[in-house]
Amino acid sequence: MNDLYKGWDGFEGGTWVKEINVRSFIRHNYTPYDGDDAFLQAPTQATLTLWDQVTELSRQELEAGGVLDMDTDVVSTITSHAPGYLNKELEQIVGFQTEKPFKRAFMPYGGIRTAKRACEDNGYHVPDQMDEFFTNHRKTHNAGVFDVYTPEMRACRSSHIITGLPDAYGRGRIIGDYRRVALYGVDRLIEDKEEQKRTTRSAMYEEIIRDREELAEQIRALHQLKQMALSYGFDISKPAANVKEAIQWLYFGYLAAIKEQNGAAMSLGRTSTFLDIYAQRDLEKGLFTETEIQEMVDHFIMKLRLVKFARTPEYNALFSGDPQWVTESIGGVAIDGRHLVTKMSYRYLHTLKNLGPSPEPNLTVLWSVNLPENFKRYCAKISIETSSIQYENDDLMRFTHGDDYAIACCVSSMRVGKEMQFFGARANLAKCLLYAINGGVDEVSKKQVGPEFTPITSEYLDYDEVMRKYDAMMQWLAEVYVNTLNVIHYMHDKYCYEKLQMALHDKNVTRWFATGIAGLSVVADSLSAIKYAKVKVIRDESGLAVDYKVEGDFPKFGNDDDRVDEIAREIVHIFMEHIRKNHTYRNSIPTTSILTITSNVVYGKATGNTPDGRKAGEAFAPGANPMHRRDTNGAVASLASVSKLPFIDAQDGISNTFSIIPGALGKEDRIFAGDLDVELDCINGACMTPTLFDDMDD
Amino acid sequence: MNDLYKGWDGFEGGTWVKEINVRSFIRHNYTPYDGDDAFLQAPTQATLTLWDQVTELSRQELEAGGVLDMDTDVVSTITSHAPGYLNKELEQIVGFQTEKPFKRAFMPYGGIRTAKRACEDNGYHVPDQMDEFFTNHRKTHNAGVFDVYTPEMRACRSSHIITGLPDAYGRGRIIGDYRRVALYGVDRLIEDKEEQKRTTRSAMYEEIIRDREELAEQIRALHQLKQMALSYGFDISKPAANVKEAIQWLYFGYLAAIKEQNGAAMSLGRTSTFLDIYAQRDLEKGLFTETEIQEMVDHFIMKLRLVKFARTPEYNALFSGDPQWVTESIGGVAIDGRHLVTKMSYRYLHTLKNLGPSPEPNLTVLWSVNLPENFKRYCAKISIETSSIQYENDDLMRFTHGDDYAIACCVSSMRVGKEMQFFGARANLAKCLLYAINGGVDEVSKKQVGPEFTPITSEYLDYDEVMRKYDAMMQWLAEVYVNTLNVIHYMHDKYCYEKLQMALHDKNVTRWFATGIAGLSVVADSLSAIKYAKVKVIRDESGLAVDYKVEGDFPKFGNDDDRVDEIAREIVHIFMEHIRKNHTYRNSIPTTSILTITSNVVYGKATGNTPDGRKAGEAFAPGANPMHRRDTNGAVASLASVSKLPFIDAQDGISNTFSIIPGALGKEDRIFAGDLDVELDCINGACMTPTLFDDMDD
Repeated sequence: MNDLYKGWDGFEGGTWVKEINVRSFIRHNYTPYDGDDAFLQAPTQATLTLWDQVTELSRQELEAGGVLDMDTDVVSTITSHAPGYLNKELEQIVGFQTEKPFKRAFMPYGGIRTAKRACEDNGYHVPDQMDEFFTNHRKTHNAGVFDVYTPEMRACRSSHIITGLPDAYGRGRIIGDYRRVALYGVDRLIEDKEEQKRTTRSAMYEEIIRDREELAEQIRALHQLKQMALSYGFDISKPAANVKEAIQWLYFGYLAAIKEQNGAAMSLGRTSTFLDIYAQRDLEKGLFTETEIQEMVDHFIMKLRLVKFARTPEYNALFSGDPQWVTESIGGVAIDGRHLVTKMSYRYLHTLKNLGPSPEPNLTVLWSVNLPENFKRYCAKISIETSSIQYENDDLMRFTHGDDYAIACCVSSMRVGKEMQFFGARANLAKCLLYAINGGVDEVSKKQVGPEFTPITSEYLDYDEVMRKYDAMMQWLAEVYVNTLNVIHYMHDKYCYEKLQMALHDKNVTRWFATGIAGLSVVADSLSAIKYAKVKVIRDESGLAVDYKVEGDFPKFGNDDDRVDEIAREIVHIFMEHIRKNHTYRNSIPTTSILTITSNVVYGKATGNTPDGRKAGEAFAPGANPMHRRDTNGAVASLASVSKLPFIDAQDGISNTFSIIPGALGKEDRIFAGDLDVELDCINGACMTPTLFDDMDD
Repeated sequence: MNDLYKGWDGFEGGTWVKEINVRSFIRHNYTPYDGDDAFLQAPTQATLTLWDQVTELSRQELEAGGVLDMDTDVVSTITSHAPGYLNKELEQIVGFQTEKPFKRAFMPYGGIRTAKRACEDNGYHVPDQMDEFFTNHRKTHNAGVFDVYTPEMRACRSSHIITGLPDAYGRGRIIGDYRRVALYGVDRLIEDKEEQKRTTRSAMYEEIIRDREELAEQIRALHQLKQMALSYGFDISKPAANVKEAIQWLYFGYLAAIKEQNGAAMSLGRTSTFLDIYAQRDLEKGLFTETEIQEMVDHFIMKLRLVKFARTPEYNALFSGDPQWVTESIGGVAIDGRHLVTKMSYRYLHTLKNLGPSPEPNLTVLWSVNLPENFKRYCAKISIETSSIQYENDDLMRFTHGDDYAIACCVSSMRVGKEMQFFGARANLAKCLLYAINGGVDEVSKKQVGPEFTPITSEYLDYDEVMRKYDAMMQWLAEVYVNTLNVIHYMHDKYCYEKLQMALHDKNVTRWFATGIAGLSVVADSLSAIKYAKVKVIRDESGLAVDYKVEGDFPKFGNDDDRVDEIAREIVHIFMEHIRKNHTYRNSIPTTSILTITSNVVYGKATGNTPDGRKAGEAFAPGANPMHRRDTNGAVASLASVSKLPFIDAQDGISNTFSIIPGALGKEDRIFAGDLDVELDCINGACMTPTLFDDMDD
């Protein structure tokens, strides 16, 4: 082993030595941990001091109205800022987005108006010259999108039949493989990217030109990453030599990404088991103690808790807060059958004790029936004590994504460094049903938004007629929705390309084209009412259907009743099939999600009375949840209905917000943990989001 | 006729009323003029005063070293500058690129380094912030191109086998149909573009997204054009009401283009006969006198003479001066057989008398045997007196481009508002022949630039072997050349799009992909020597062919000898066929040109000894010219050789620089004019460039 790779001393070889392949490195070198949490260490004095400082700054930030400081005249890039510290002497892991903690960077590439408003709403003024540059000379993603939108797209956006589109904020949902920085050092990554560029096809079709330009941008970003690390006193051109360096190198990679991009979800990936390999080696060598390693992890996680972006009130309203989704995926099971839990998995979760509960980073356990019993119990304990862990179904996702995927945002699974997502917010299928009934006229604005199809004019709704018209309206909606997203992602690539994040991806990346559905249980119940009860239409003077009277009872989604569950399943399938009929940007693979955690409230507000008896403005159920209070057959039946939804048609994830009081599961903590398997097994890729996450959304 | 279109009062209707169609307007309304130049008027006192002012400023500019004033902190846009005047009271036609005459604008979209160097070389400093912005946040065409170039492209560029590429300067060669501004007013043009945008296809493939974004940019540019005109006190939203407004509106259109773009050739189009319609109507109405109209034309042409760009010494070296190619095409014959000469054609040429000779604007007569005798004689007279007219063969170009084309730069013909060109400089075919002999090794740098084919090792060159290898090397060269141009034009569209010029084009534009050839007569003579004489190869110690000894005589291009003329013809055809095999950006149609006026000197400098006996560093002949002193059979034989070149394979034009002393054609002016037909008939689309133009190039 030459000097360059002395950081690899003691590691077992494998494919990863010859090519960029972090999974191979993990597989050959990690040590599964089946023990309990007895080894974990309390916070050091340095940690407590730093955390006190953070707490004080947070208090000041709150007092100042939510923002403590903002840049207005420095455009954030990887290298735009001098190093920033909380307390340089005490910090084991260093690095902030700007030259000091709690100061938010200025990031106008996504849209100058949004960036400006974010400043102005907090009392900061963007210099006119900056405004002029980004208005007249440097076009932004937002400006590009609105140049291209059709009047139909704008109408759909205004009427909220398509909503939450990332056209005025960063799309996020791209996870750089930040582990590569630690394992290989930046020089090797640059070399690899140079080789990728050298070997593109030579006939200069537009996609080849684009690829080459993007690779050039990626290489530039990697050079800047090195430069930024150097400003903190670290030469990260070579592989990390120990666990401390590994954490620091990895964090620099992530830090560069959040200096460059203000994405809606800037997730971290799946880093704990990777880092444990370094920790294990260093412990065995006696290089660091457990206390020292926990201190590094505490400081690292502390940094992740301090990720901050300049955002507008509208953004915060849509997302019900100011979330970052610094999601870290922990645990899961390998393809070879071994679980992927290590001591580092514990150490990450243990920060919730050492630093106290927190929604960020979004620590997500990839749950499997095959996780070690000790770890399951530990997770349950920490969940009960801190309400700060998210759980997702690894047994399901592993089937599609293998054993080195991670969660971006709250449920979007992707192979780290090999897959990325074009995030697409969602289509309001409940409103679409109303358009089917009203021939494309919006029930709120009374405007013709959808195609001018023949409306339904009968007194009572006929199931077959409604379904036929709904199918056609969904086809229209899918088309305008996909095309809108095509515009958005073309422009995001053009004006706000994630060059650092993509530099930490393979050359040939699978791109998911992630659409989303809102209002599913409203639709299922409405169609069930039309089929199994009688639904009378109430029309206004212009003949527009404005309300519905349900006569008789009908099966409701959430009661494990196939009559309606089958309708829900069918709707998801039909819509997804319509989505698939369209051209999707950059050969991306269309998926959908049934996923809202709070924005269901906003969507409901914009939607009129529905045939299930729901009143205009009433919130939809979140994600794939049954409508509130309609799941009357108990928790298991409610979960069973959701579990019937076809994951194959909603691969971007199905969420079910499920609140349980501890008493419902038994009076003692340990019983809760024991029962957990049963519930999680019956949820398809579901996101179990505890209370602290309830104020966040997609 | 409603109020909006009162500017059309007295015009005959036609297709042009319902759609944007200037040709239809001309066809229905122009008055061919067969008379002589007796009607022309001398300059007014105002004209003389203004021209004195210009002369004085020109003197000051020369004294100041070539530049009188420069912007460094205002990025030029259509609306970036306040109005500028020479003498507001006297100017009939107003408008400058910046807020005062002789001040050059700062245009960094094409490349910040070039724009900066242009300033610094003239003693002006670009603020660091501006540099930083265009380096880090607002990428330029030049930066984009160099991100994508392959090492092979760079090597070809360095060795000058491909040369003069528009990758650090604006491509130019796009003529907006500035007449549309006068005829329709800007509101109607915006309406038309809005309709074009409304009717794009709705499936958002990337090319549709690009079209829609470009249309949005075009519409924005038209709004800015109106705003700019308004700053000069003119509302150009409606059609021009008289000839003065027509000239002013048209000039504002052109002015907006040169405020936005620093293209290598910012040509004007074919405006004289269009404007004559207004002049004729106004004369008949008694609205203006001939003197007044000539004054407007003089002031208009004066403005065109003052078009100035900030350029670098390298640029000026390549183009042997600081040319603008404000080319205006005059005369020609209509498809219906009528000639297109009007009084305005005379008035334009008469500016060469009223203001004195000038290379700018490049007044180009589209010559036809069917031009009226009086006009032919007038052209000849002005040519003799001013050496300032360029002639091109309308009878040939009309066949391809109809009767409303114009010349961009010096020979590139395109239908106005319907065709544009991706300019591509040229490939050095003489050097390519040496690569064929030396297996891709450059004879000057000794580096492997081309593919490592087997070199020729025989003592004497064998024609068949050389041709086989030359064919393969041309295929390689055509491929790398076309791909290089693909990169350049993709990036020009991306970072330096000509939005105002394209706003004055139809929706569906024919794009010519213009390649070029240098060194043709060297190649023809070399191959002729190999075939008809004996060529001995002289090699250096490494075996590289570095010189050639010709034993015996051989037919030389330029003597009307089919043996060699056929070789020249064949080479053009083979190279063009190789060009055609490649993918060309944006469905453009590949063409080539045989066209250099002075850069043949530079190309010759970079090329070693050739088998025709030409020594290393010696200039090539310009364009399609025979090599100097080798055309020994007289002028007609020389022209005959050139005329055999296939225009179908070199549709972008074939130039022949042909100097004649008056005595060669007769002693009196009138005889010269009479003989002119004969000569011009035998040149294929050739550019007859008189002495004043000799210091300019492609």
